[in-house]
Amino acid sequence: MKLILLIDIFGTVAFAISGVLTALNKRLDPFGILIIAFVAAVGGGTLRDILIDAPVSWMRNLTFIYVIFGSTIFAVIFRKRLGYIRRSLFLFDTIGIALYTIVGVEKGIAAGFHPTICIALGTITACFGGVLRDILCNEIPIIFRKEIYATACILGASTYFLLHFSRIPEDFIVIISGSVVIIIRLMAVYFKLSLPSIYTNEEMEN
Amino acid sequence: MKLILLIDIFGTVAFAISGVLTALNKRLDPFGILIIAFVAAVGGGTLRDILIDAPVSWMRNLTFIYVIFGSTIFAVIFRKRLGYIRRSLFLFDTIGIALYTIVGVEKGIAAGFHPTICIALGTITACFGGVLRDILCNEIPIIFRKEIYATACILGASTYFLLHFSRIPEDFIVIISGSVVIIIRLMAVYFKLSLPSIYTNEEMEN
Amino acid sequence: MKLILLIDIFGTVAFAISGVLTALNKRLDPFGILIIAFVAAVGGGTLRDILIDAPVSWMRNLTFIYVIFGSTIFAVIFRKRLGYIRRSLFLFDTIGIALYTIVGVEKGIAAGFHPTICIALGTITACFGGVLRDILCNEIPIIFRKEIYATACILGASTYFLLHFSRIPEDFIVIISGSVVIIIRLMAVYFKLSLPSIYTNEEMEN
Repeated sequence: MKLILLIDIFGTVAFAISGVLTALNKRLDPFGILIIAFVAAVGGGTLRDILIDAPVSWMRNLTFIYVIFGSTIFAVIFRKRLGYIRRSLFLFDTIGIALYTIVGVEKGIAAGFHPTICIALGTITACFGGVLRDILCNEIPIIFRKEIYATACILGASTYFLLHFSRIPEDFIVIISGSVVIIIRLMAVYFKLSLPSIYTNEEMEN
Repeated sequence: MKLILLIDIFGTVAFAISGVLTALNKRLDPFGILIIAFVAAVGGGTLRDILIDAPVSWMRNLTFIYVIFGSTIFAVIFRKRLGYIRRSLFLFDTIGIALYTIVGVEKGIAAGFHPTICIALGTITACFGGVLRDILCNEIPIIFRKEIYATACILGASTYFLLHFSRIPEDFIVIISGSVVIIIRLMAVYFKLSLPSIYTNEEMEN
Repeated sequence: MKLILLIDIFGTVAFAISGVLTALNKRLDPFGILIIAFVAAVGGGTLRDILIDAPVSWMRNLTFIYVIFGSTIFAVIFRKRLGYIRRSLFLFDTIGIALYTIVGVEKGIAAGFHPTICIALGTITACFGGVLRDILCNEIPIIFRKEIYATACILGASTYFLLHFSRIPEDFIVIISGSVVIIIRLMAVYFKLSLPSIYTNEEMEN
C-alpha cells in the first residue's frame, strides 16, 4: 500500500513537471505554469471521476495538491538542469501512466462498468491529463500524433481483464498488467517505435 | 423504436466519419483518429449528461462504441473514396443532428428543466461533438464560423415546444420538429445560406 | 441581498461582453458570438458545480441567460462604441470576479471542502470562464500570460478564510475579502504590475 502511494506520488511529480515544461515553452506566467502543471497531473483522473459521477479525488485528498505545488516550484527553479534528470522523469512518467491506468480500470470495475468501458477509463486516466495540458497551451495533443503511449495503456488495461477472470491474485494482476504498460512504453521509446503510419508519402507532403 | 435506433446509428456513423476526416486532415496517428471520431460522435451527449447530472449514455450501452470503432476503420481504409459517399454522409449527418436535438430536448424535459434550457440541451447534444472535435484538432469550431447548423437545431427544438403544448401526439411532434431541423439545414446548404454577416467590409479586411 | 444580485448581474454583463469582444475579434458568426459570451459568463461557475457535483446554477435560474442574451445583442450593435464604456466594463469585470470568487469559496465551504480547495473553487469560478472563452477561440488563455487576475482572486479568497476563523460577522468578511480582490486588480492595472517574470532576457528572445 505504501509502495503504491509512493509510486503514485512520483507519477504525479512526473506529470506535473511535464506540465511545467510545456508551460515554460509557451512563456506562461507563474500562475499559468501552476495551472498547466495541475491539469497535467490531475486532469485525466478528474475527467474519469466526472464521467463515472464519483467524487473528484484530488478535492478530498490534499497530498497531491502539495506534491504538484512543490514539483512546480522545483521545476521552475531548476528548469535549466532538468535535462540531467530527463531519464528519471521519463521513468517516473512511464511508471505513472502504468499506475494511473490500473487505478482507472479498478475504479471502473468498482462502479460496475463493462470491461470495454473500464479499459477506456484506464486510458483516459493515464492520457487525458496530457491532452488537456496541450489544449490549454494551444497545441494539438502530442499523444494524438506520435507516441506509443495510449496504446501501451490500452494493452495494459486489456491484460488486466484477461487475468481478472483467472485465479491469479489481485496483487499479481496489478503488477503484471502494470509491467505490460511499462515494457511497451520503454520498448517503443528505445526502438523508436510509433503506430504504423496510415499516410502515403504523397499525403504527408501536402 | 427500431427506426429511431437505426437513425441514431446512422447519425453516429456520420459524426464519427466527420471526426476521422478532421483528424486525417491534421495527420493524426491511428489512436488520435479514433479519439477524435469518438469525441465527435458522443461529445455532445456526454456534455449534456454531465450538465444535467445523468449517467453518461455511451458508458452503459456499448452499441455506439462498436459503431464508432467500425466507422473509424471503414473511413480510414476508404478515405480516398469518401468523396463518392459525401452526399450520403451529409444526409446522415443532417438526420443525425435532427435526432440528437430531439433526444436532448426530451432528456431535458424528463429532468424537469425550463423550455429554454431544454432547447439549449438539444442544441448542445447536436452541436458540441463537433465543437470538441475541432478544439482537440486546434481549430476554431466550424459551427461558430459559417454554417447554419446550430440555428437549425434551435428552431427545431423550439418547434418541439410550440407543439408540446398542443394536443398533437408525441410521435408527430418528434417527426415535425425533426423535419424542421432537416429542412432548414438542407435549404441552407442548397441555397448557400449562412447567418447574416454582422461585419462591415472594412472589418473583414482587417 | 438585492445589492449582491445586482452586482452579480453587472458582473455577468461584463463577462458576456468580454466574450463578445473576443468572438468579434475572431470574426465569428452570430451563433458563435452568443456561445462565447455564454461560456465566458457562466463557464467558471459551471466547471465549479460539476467538480463539486452540485446542480449547475444557470440551468435552474434563467435570469442570467436573459442577461447574457441582452448583453450580447447590445455589445454586437454598439461594438464600435464600446471603447467609451471600457472603464465601466473594466469596473464591472473587476467587481464581478470579486463576487464570483466569494460565491465559489462559499459554495465550497457549504459542501464541506478544505480551505485550500475552497480557495481553488473561488479562483476557478472567477477565472475559468475566461479560460474557456479563449480556448474556444483558439488562443492561449490570457490569464496564463500577463494579468494579475487569478492572483487577486487567490489573495481575496485567502483573506476570506483568515477572517472566517475570527469573530467578524459574515457580511463584513464578504465585503473585506471582495475589496481585497478589487484593490489588487485595480492597483495591478493602474501601476501596470504583472507577476514577476521568471524568464531571462535570453529566454524571451528565443
